[in-house]
Amino acid sequence: MKTFNVITLQHTQFVNIDSEVQAIVAQSGVQHGVCHVFVPHTTAGITINENADPDVVRDITQTLERLVPWEGGYAHLEGNAAAHLKAGLLGFTQTVLIENGALALGTWQSLFFCEFDGPRQRKVWAQIVPAA
Amino acid sequence: MKTFNVITLQHTQFVNIDSEVQAIVAQSGVQHGVCHVFVPHTTAGITINENADPDVVRDITQTLERLVPWEGGYAHLEGNAAAHLKAGLLGFTQTVLIENGALALGTWQSLFFCEFDGPRQRKVWAQIVPAA
Amino acid sequence: MKTFNVITLQHTQFVNIDSEVQAIVAQSGVQHGVCHVFVPHTTAGITINENADPDVVRDITQTLERLVPWEGGYAHLEGNAAAHLKAGLLGFTQTVLIENGALALGTWQSLFFCEFDGPRQRKVWAQIVPAA
Repeated sequence: MKTFNVITLQHTQFVNIDSEVQAIVAQSGVQHGVCHVFVPHTTAGITINENADPDVVRDITQTLERLVPWEGGYAHLEGNAAAHLKAGLLGFTQTVLIENGALALGTWQSLFFCEFDGPRQRKVWAQIVPAA
Repeated sequence: MKTFNVITLQHTQFVNIDSEVQAIVAQSGVQHGVCHVFVPHTTAGITINENADPDVVRDITQTLERLVPWEGGYAHLEGNAAAHLKAGLLGFTQTVLIENGALALGTWQSLFFCEFDGPRQRKVWAQIVPAA
Repeated sequence: MKTFNVITLQHTQFVNIDSEVQAIVAQSGVQHGVCHVFVPHTTAGITINENADPDVVRDITQTLERLVPWEGGYAHLEGNAAAHLKAGLLGFTQTVLIENGALALGTWQSLFFCEFDGPRQRKVWAQIVPAA
């Protein structure tokens, strides 16, 4: 299992982690397989979406805030229930394919670490599995 | 493929399945890899979130009910369209990592089977895959 | 890595891809393992849900449109921000199990390619991984 850190600077922030994951894939030497990328937190998640226009990430974070507002009369006394919910909706794991020794993403896709209760120092875990 | 049962007692209920999944991981003898946990239903899903404070699960189920109310003028005549939707939003599979022969979850993370149309007897399937 | 095309004919359309994925599983010869199905786009996703009653898919697409309306005052100037959001909520990858050489889905489950900005010609990627 490989790990790397993500340091977030804002309360809500999507951090492109393509290069960190690509480095793990390259170091593994695996030519064909998958890379499982896992976020071991409960108030941060991981997603895939468009990186070319940063407005896409802005629309995602603003829409999530409209659907799951920070102040929402939640029971969880720590005050960050909305972060638990947003992370759970996007999920804590992404599985990406490895082809010819490289991370295979679509033309417009990037992997984003999704901070919903920052700023914090976070971890990402990855596991490489060879294909049949 | 390994399977185990989950018996739900309420209409909407999150059931912690960490110990069942950990037992499957331990029995496999795999030291480094991943465990794919799959829910073969369409009105129950699976998620990861905080287990320490049960209010987090309460906030998740109540927020899902606000976003996708049980009575919502749906077309599906069986009456449980909201359960299909909630399960689909959280998803039917989780991939968790195996490190040193044990399930690797974050400090605050647990795996939850998510019943949205109970009470019922349900199944969970798991498949273990070794890492590179 | 195996790929196949999905041609969508409507703006929002769920396409059952069970038979395409089953064919890839059968050709692989893998008896026990998993199949990772990946959508390399940012305005189309992939989900699992009930196929028997097409009203379930209709309820899903209509509820997503209620939660994330096409016209929503988004920043993304291309005009399809809602498609990025809907795809991200359902996700871009599904992991399904392989048992006895066949795709293992629950009785009522099907795999759906989820078009949110069609009609378009799309790609699906799949990678087969053997179990321990």
